[in-house]
Amino acid sequence: MDALDKLSEIFKKFPGIGPRQAKRFVYHILQENEEDIAELINAISNIKRGVSICDKCYRYFENKNKQMVVPCPICSNTSRDQSTLMIVAKDIDLLAVERSRAYNGVYFVLGNTVPILDEEPHKKIRQGELLYRVEELTNLKEIIIATSVNTEGEHTAFYLNTLLRPYKEKSGFKITTLGRGLSTGTELEYSDGDTLKSALENRH
Amino acid sequence: MDALDKLSEIFKKFPGIGPRQAKRFVYHILQENEEDIAELINAISNIKRGVSICDKCYRYFENKNKQMVVPCPICSNTSRDQSTLMIVAKDIDLLAVERSRAYNGVYFVLGNTVPILDEEPHKKIRQGELLYRVEELTNLKEIIIATSVNTEGEHTAFYLNTLLRPYKEKSGFKITTLGRGLSTGTELEYSDGDTLKSALENRH
Amino acid sequence: MDALDKLSEIFKKFPGIGPRQAKRFVYHILQENEEDIAELINAISNIKRGVSICDKCYRYFENKNKQMVVPCPICSNTSRDQSTLMIVAKDIDLLAVERSRAYNGVYFVLGNTVPILDEEPHKKIRQGELLYRVEELTNLKEIIIATSVNTEGEHTAFYLNTLLRPYKEKSGFKITTLGRGLSTGTELEYSDGDTLKSALENRH
Amino acid sequence: MDALDKLSEIFKKFPGIGPRQAKRFVYHILQENEEDIAELINAISNIKRGVSICDKCYRYFENKNKQMVVPCPICSNTSRDQSTLMIVAKDIDLLAVERSRAYNGVYFVLGNTVPILDEEPHKKIRQGELLYRVEELTNLKEIIIATSVNTEGEHTAFYLNTLLRPYKEKSGFKITTLGRGLSTGTELEYSDGDTLKSALENRH
Repeated sequence: MDALDKLSEIFKKFPGIGPRQAKRFVYHILQENEEDIAELINAISNIKRGVSICDKCYRYFENKNKQMVVPCPICSNTSRDQSTLMIVAKDIDLLAVERSRAYNGVYFVLGNTVPILDEEPHKKIRQGELLYRVEELTNLKEIIIATSVNTEGEHTAFYLNTLLRPYKEKSGFKITTLGRGLSTGTELEYSDGDTLKSALENRH
Repeated sequence: MDALDKLSEIFKKFPGIGPRQAKRFVYHILQENEEDIAELINAISNIKRGVSICDKCYRYFENKNKQMVVPCPICSNTSRDQSTLMIVAKDIDLLAVERSRAYNGVYFVLGNTVPILDEEPHKKIRQGELLYRVEELTNLKEIIIATSVNTEGEHTAFYLNTLLRPYKEKSGFKITTLGRGLSTGTELEYSDGDTLKSALENRH
Repeated sequence: MDALDKLSEIFKKFPGIGPRQAKRFVYHILQENEEDIAELINAISNIKRGVSICDKCYRYFENKNKQMVVPCPICSNTSRDQSTLMIVAKDIDLLAVERSRAYNGVYFVLGNTVPILDEEPHKKIRQGELLYRVEELTNLKEIIIATSVNTEGEHTAFYLNTLLRPYKEKSGFKITTLGRGLSTGTELEYSDGDTLKSALENRH
Repeated sequence: MDALDKLSEIFKKFPGIGPRQAKRFVYHILQENEEDIAELINAISNIKRGVSICDKCYRYFENKNKQMVVPCPICSNTSRDQSTLMIVAKDIDLLAVERSRAYNGVYFVLGNTVPILDEEPHKKIRQGELLYRVEELTNLKEIIIATSVNTEGEHTAFYLNTLLRPYKEKSGFKITTLGRGLSTGTELEYSDGDTLKSALENRH
């Protein structure tokens, strides 16, 4: 396989990229000058070198001086509420919640969702790490399961609920899920019963 | 204008129908047999003859015996809670809420939303009729403003809020809006700040 | 079933209309005044009364004085070339060709396309009528098979070709199909091999 | 700016990539193992190292032994017809034509299209290189202008036509454009007049 095809094959594995766009990426890079390409290669190299995975919440974060592994800025921020833990599936979900500036607790990144009918769900997500973290947070008052409202997200929420129940009974924290209702852009006419029911219950 | 163009022009005024689909409707009708066409004409005639507009909530409803105008089945149903009034923009919104089986109060159909910067908003919606109905419901405890979560829907909610405030102060009912949060299908990663904030507040 | 549902059911059979839009059509009609509804009913009635099917090309056309059945204006227009016959699947295809002002021959409307694997294709299209018309046009020099470039369109072209071959050999007319190539909006990068091959052959 | 943002900024400049997908690419890379990342970096490095730009047609091509610059395999293939030159806007258009196996001449890659109202069109495309190539091909019989059928593609064809006219008159080659007609998937009913006109002219 030649160099063009080789790179195109790699880009095809990027999320959401088909063969046509992979090829377009290759030509995009070909048109760049040496400096831009060096910058891209550098940025890719740096990402593993300069990025650590937090040993509390398991999110990726910038950590220039990697000699000493420390928790990420959120987990080590003493003004964040350590008694509330939000479980999200992916780093990118955590970023969305941070962007909203509506949450001041800490996080745990599962790394994945649990597919329905999966026979070994504990291998799909950071299950051991989650349970360790839950026990480590001795002052835990609430776990917020923050998964998407689709089949796999709801199944993951169900799985986590079952998994965490014994810990909840032992430690006395509560388990909550994000409130449902009308989201931005929702038109009443197209809303399903579940959404409308929640929107009515949460009216204020 | 010939008969084909004439009918096509009328179909072009149907909501969401462009010139091509209007023409396709015409050919669809041409291919129908006499019986089907008679049935269509009949159904259209019956709709004005057999359908009344409720003099309480202003929705359209089936009323075969039109000699006596009565309120619609919802407004005349004594098991519905007459102390809660939900204001919706359109009949079709009312149908969505009824389908959810989550609401047992009564309704008022505005007939429209209030466009931003509209100089005569009271002419766009059934304003006089709404105020009359609000005064008529002597036992009113809550008005739910149930508009869509888009620019015009939120502007309409704002307009109604201002309009109803004096009545609220006089009569002591409260004014609420539908709860916001994650709706069915919402992915966390794509959620805006407002939606996430509400979803967090309404967690349970 | 009540009058609202009845009309909504009929609209659901219109091409491309789902249950939601059918309902929206019903409310659209409810909001119309008596005059508009009378106009709609009139237009629907007139369409069968004022529209004939041409006994030459089988297209629908305006024919106010239906006492005497005559061919449609195209078929009876002596300045149109009666030695070229274009076969189209639907009235709406004929309209598209007429709009282009690129064709001066006569037409035949099949009424349908022939689905692949259909066991009785002669019942799907106006086969007998077509063969009668082909024999009637004694001076026929060319038949243009003008079907869409999709699976069913191409299968129909193949079927017609086989059907008309014996007549072609007897009468000496030729059978052609529309030229393929780049159509308006086509981007080279996304073109398939067949289209590019034709575009190269038809370069000028 | 941290390493995550840095890489995300670079991906945002990739064709068709917005901020969300750029971020998803970053997390995709973070989840890869060291080996996969080394492979990606390698593939990017190789692309400039192992890929040359042909000094005849200006397309990118695999050239492992870059010590000696040679024309690309197409330009140096003696069985390709050197008397026919196809001008395309982009490498990716050339690939589409090669895939069709319908063309056996040589190419010239402009590198771009000419925007309408551009004041310095000669700076947008490889104009000098094209004119040099046209004079170099002493046996040239035809230039095929193969641009997309959209505003910018058609303007580029017009610009090239004007540019090449003096050379055409001097050297006696002809200038053609790709044939228009129905492309794969085209439905008659939705075809514009230009396409139908060409499809009729190119019928066969």
